[in-house]
Formats: sequence, C-alpha cells, structure tokens
Amino acid sequence: MSVTAPRGFRAAGVAAGLKPGGARDVAVVINDGPSRAAAAVFTSNRVKAAPVLWSQQVLAGGRVRAVILNAGGANACTGAPGFQDTHTTAERVAAALEDSAAEIAVCSTGLIGERLDMPKLLAGADEAVATAARDGGLAAADAIRTTDTVAKIAFRRGAGYTIGGMAKGAGMLAPSLATMLSVVTTDADLTAEQCDRLLRAATRVTFDRVDADGCVSTNDTVLLLASGASGTVPDEDEFGALLTEVCHDLARQLIADAEGASKSIAIEVVGAASEDDAVTVARSIARNALFKCAIYGEDPNWGRVLAAVGTTDAAFDPDHLNVAINGVWVCRGGAVGDDRDKVDLKPREVTVTVDLSAGSHAATVWTTDLTVEYVHENSAYST
Amino acid sequence: MSVTAPRGFRAAGVAAGLKPGGARDVAVVINDGPSRAAAAVFTSNRVKAAPVLWSQQVLAGGRVRAVILNAGGANACTGAPGFQDTHTTAERVAAALEDSAAEIAVCSTGLIGERLDMPKLLAGADEAVATAARDGGLAAADAIRTTDTVAKIAFRRGAGYTIGGMAKGAGMLAPSLATMLSVVTTDADLTAEQCDRLLRAATRVTFDRVDADGCVSTNDTVLLLASGASGTVPDEDEFGALLTEVCHDLARQLIADAEGASKSIAIEVVGAASEDDAVTVARSIARNALFKCAIYGEDPNWGRVLAAVGTTDAAFDPDHLNVAINGVWVCRGGAVGDDRDKVDLKPREVTVTVDLSAGSHAATVWTTDLTVEYVHENSAYST
Repeated sequence: MSVTAPRGFRAAGVAAGLKPGGARDVAVVINDGPSRAAAAVFTSNRVKAAPVLWSQQVLAGGRVRAVILNAGGANACTGAPGFQDTHTTAERVAAALEDSAAEIAVCSTGLIGERLDMPKLLAGADEAVATAARDGGLAAADAIRTTDTVAKIAFRRGAGYTIGGMAKGAGMLAPSLATMLSVVTTDADLTAEQCDRLLRAATRVTFDRVDADGCVSTNDTVLLLASGASGTVPDEDEFGALLTEVCHDLARQLIADAEGASKSIAIEVVGAASEDDAVTVARSIARNALFKCAIYGEDPNWGRVLAAVGTTDAAFDPDHLNVAINGVWVCRGGAVGDDRDKVDLKPREVTVTVDLSAGSHAATVWTTDLTVEYVHENSAYST
Repeated sequence: MSVTAPRGFRAAGVAAGLKPGGARDVAVVINDGPSRAAAAVFTSNRVKAAPVLWSQQVLAGGRVRAVILNAGGANACTGAPGFQDTHTTAERVAAALEDSAAEIAVCSTGLIGERLDMPKLLAGADEAVATAARDGGLAAADAIRTTDTVAKIAFRRGAGYTIGGMAKGAGMLAPSLATMLSVVTTDADLTAEQCDRLLRAATRVTFDRVDADGCVSTNDTVLLLASGASGTVPDEDEFGALLTEVCHDLARQLIADAEGASKSIAIEVVGAASEDDAVTVARSIARNALFKCAIYGEDPNWGRVLAAVGTTDAAFDPDHLNVAINGVWVCRGGAVGDDRDKVDLKPREVTVTVDLSAGSHAATVWTTDLTVEYVHENSAYST
C-alpha cells in the first residue's frame, strides 16, 4: 500500500542506472491534491547534504507538489555544484508536472562526497513522473533501498481517511549510505501548520528514538504530505496517534533490517525524573560499544549497562539502580540481583529495562547489537 | 624501571590466585618517604567502583603511604559489602606496614558486579608487602595487566630527580576489565597541592585524550606519589613537562596495545576557535563507529569525518572544512579535494587532520579502529 494508499497520490520507482546492477533507484511521489499541505523534519547534522538544504527551503512554504528521491549518491559534501544539481533535478520534475520547482522536495541517499550522474538522474526523473500511478507505491519504496534487504511500508486507516508511508535505511544507522528517508502521505485535510506539529510529535517518539550506531547522517529526511482528497478533517488526537503508529511501524522495520545486526534491542528506561533523562540514559546505553558487543555475545553483562548509565547527567543514585534483561532483574540496588544465568538472550528481540528510581517518567530507544558483520559491511563500503 | 626508578619507593607483584592460570595479579607500591605527598585523578563515571570511592577519601588528605592494586575483579557495583572489602584490604596493608589505612590507596580492575575473593586477595597483599623491593617495579607493572599483552612502563630524569610510571588498560578502552590504572612516582620534593595541580595539567592533555571506544570505566585511576627522597625541589615548569612526557608515553602505549585494534589513529584538529572546540570535534570523530570501521578497511572515507564533525556544536562553516588523511588533503572547502587514491592507509599509524578554519587552537585525541577482533574480544568476555 505504501504512499499511494491514501487518495490523491501517484508514485513510481524506476531504474535510472545510478545503482550498479540495474535495480530501481529513482522514485517520485506526486500529490494531486486538492491540498498540498506538507511538513518535514531533517537531520540535526550541521553538515547537510544539498537535497536537505534545498528541501528545507521548499518546506518553509508549507506546500509540496512532489518529492523526487534517488539512491546511488547522497549529494553531500559536493559544494555549490552539488546544490545546483539538486536545483536542476527539482526544475526537471516541476517542468514535467507543469508546476513550480519551489514545491518540489528532493531526497538523496548513497555515498558522501561524489557528484550525481545528472544525465541518468534527469532521465530517471522524467520516466518516474511519466509512469507515476496510483499503484506505484511499492515500486517507489523499492527504489529508495540501498543496503535495505526489504522495502519498508506501512499504512493505517482512520475515520474517513488513510495514512501511508515508506522508509529506507535508518537515522543514525550504518553506513553513510544508510541515511533514513521516509515519505508519509495522507488524504486527510490538514493545514501545513497541523502537518508540522503532528509530524514533529510523531517523529520525536519514533524515528528520533532509533539509534543503531550513534552516527547521524547528512541526509535524514521525513516528509508528511496531505492531499485532502478524502475531504475529511480529522480529529487531531486520532490522527496523531495513527501517524505515530505508522512512524513507529516504519522505525521498527528499519531496526529489524539494520545492517549486520543480529539483535533488535529495546532500551526501556523507567523511574526517570523526566522524559529527557530517560531518553538520555537510554541513548547512552544504545551507543555503548561494550554493551552492544555483550548482547551480540548473548552475555547479560549488566555491569556495562551501569557503566553507560554512569556517564550521563540524569538524576539517579548509583545505589538505587535496577536493571532487567529480558525480564530478569540481574541488578538490584546497584549491585548483583537475580541469577544472570536465568537470562535467555537467544531470541532476536532483546529488552533491557533500567529503573532509575528517581521519578515517574519513561522512554524507550531502539537499537541493535554490534557485530562482526557490522564491521565487515562498514569497512568495505566505498572501496 | 617503572615506579621504582625514583628513590624512596619499593614495589612488588605477586600471584594471589585471582587471575586464572597463576599469573601475577596483586601489586603494591610503597612510598618510604621522607615525604608522602600525593594526588590522583579518578573516573568521571558516576557509577564508581568501591576502590575509587575509598581512594577519593584517602587522597583528600593529600598523603599516600602505599597503593595496593589487584587485577581479577573490579569490585564495582558490589554495594556496601564491596566497599567493606576495599576497606579491609587497606587495613591489611596498613597493618603490614605498621601505618594508617587512611593513607593506603586501593585500585582494582576486572569484571564488574562480582565480589573479590578476599582470602586470596589478603594473602596476596601480605606477600606483596613482605616482598616489596627496590627492583620490584616491573613485577608490579606485570601484575596489573588484564588483557594487556605487555607491561607498560615509562620514566624520565630531571635536574636532580626522577619520574617513573606504570599503567594498564586504557581509560575509555575496552572491555570493562580494561579500566585504566596508572601509578606515577617521583623522588622530587613536592607538596600535595603541587602534585594535584601538576597531575591534572598532565593528564588533561594525555590520558584524557585517549579514547578508544568512548566507554568510560567505573575504576579509572591515575596516582602521583612524591617521596622527596632526592631532596630536590624541582622547577615546576620542567617537572610538569617531564610528567606530561611520562603520561603521554604511557597513554600511547595503551593505545598501541588496545584490544583488537589494528590501527593507532591520531585525530588532529587545527584551526579551532578554542581548545575545547578542537577536543570536542576530535572526540566526536574518535567515537564515530563508521569512521573507525572505514579506517579498519583502509578506506579514506572523509565523508564520514565530515558527518562526525557536523554532529558537534563547535564553531565552523561546513563549506570551509578541510580534511587530510595521512597528509593527503582529500577534502577541501567541505567538498572533494585531492585524489583519495593517494592516501596510504597500510601503516599502523594513521593521522587524520581536520582544519575547522575557525581560529588558531588545536588538540589531538588518540584512538583506534573498530575491528572484527574488537567485537570478538568484547562479545566473549564474561561468558
């Protein structure tokens, strides 16, 4: 179903020759309206790729007619010529749609520091716009894959409207080509301001809490496009909950397919003095190389969890920390708890629960283990 | 030469049975005076091992008669009973020396979350004190090894005095047993206040800038003991420079012997608006998993360097960043620079230079690559 599940959208995914091997590598998502309300969140990295710089300008207007996405090159660290390439791409799509480039968003993913093959990309853009159709959502999701082994799509139905989405890679995942890109569409009737507020609220607790290796891409982009084609003005709370479900679904698919990972790990922090504290602690554990190696080795090494907690400025007393791994409280009161041999780390899904005993707030961050395969894939990428 | 190079010090390293296999695992360094001035720096981790909590109290007095060190157990996350074990150990050493436990520092390294085998440790402490001798420095350096493949020692001679040192593991190195412990001795005549000031200045630019995997141990400790046995009151600038050399020497030995590493990487940041900015940027690169995998793969992937720089709040303009890898400026002005094929990444020593073009400050952080061997060693440690 993907991005064409909601009414008012056409999409396509075509093979333009940017990826070696002839796989699909250029996608387009077109909003035929009647509304063009849109919002986006972008990477927090200060080194931003040309398509991010371009799309930030487009989204400032709150309207998007179409998004053109390519794999096979990130167009990051390419200077003024790279920005011109993005501009040219947007102009080409605008011309094919007889519309304005100021409402064409651009996303790219692939190796940093190389120019795109523009003749191939522009021909692919032409073909994508020409073939875009109501049943093109899955092809578009396929075209934006890089090292993704499967296309990631999701959708939910609300009262009189639909939300659909596609994604690739993962924010802060590996390697540099694994930029997270996601396009979410809806036929609900929303203002640009509503799109912005609802998208930020949804990504804050989903995509923003996926942290595979702590590396922040130059290209991360999540777009929300609203066509209004259903004629339904949704209840904001219901829409927000469904949008969060779609984003959560896509984020979990990213972690499940993370390069080289053998475990999907949920770090649940409870008993925190604030939600910020909970996220800070969870992220510190999610980024701790020793902890991630231990989970790869199916070793319930809770000492490494405590050592990671101890590097944060969250409110806690070291003597009142409790840690459970897959439900076994192996650390109680900052010291040895239940028998660690009771912990079963064989399943792919792992849950680490940290009780800070400092309040009533909680948050979960999703991450992966650090594996030999991760090192292999990321040491042999650009060469 | 190690810690017994300066006059006034005896040391020993004995096998107490804490390590499997019968290797030395308990060391003692005794200061016979006439002075007992001392200072220390400890881990910044808020989850501190019992010996750190104990030694912080001892060092508050500015005097240390002896240090007892053990491998085979970190005595971290062991609660009140673990603290009592440390106290008992200090009392035992004090009794053997007919001195006060309030001037006995304790250091431990090994697995977190397990109690020490106290009968073995106390017997080892007795034997160490009984056999401590002027030629015991090397045996002591050997006894504190965990996964270290070689003992780390260093010394320098000043005008009328000597500085000696030993170290094991590395601060923020891997795995949790690889706590950094270091004892530096001198026969110069210094006050405790001088020791504190000079040690902080030296560690700030040496041990504090070693960052193998971003993981901060619960047990890191660096001690400086001054016996005054040379009768020489040193020139502070000269002493500070020599102390920094000893710490730098030891820190580089730690990186050179880091678990699973195949490269020793110096991250030099120049053109920074402040030294803090330079350190922040260098540390961000040193902790970036994708960059570290690339160096393991001998891939001069400068895009990953820029992506790491972009996650910091240092002063820079993305369009004015320059990056050299082993002397080849592969990135100029935030975009492609010289031919990356000219970069030779075969040697073990790698230098990455980042020019922020934002000022005149500089700093270097030393790190390692992220290797398959690192993952192997750290996924199979406690099991």
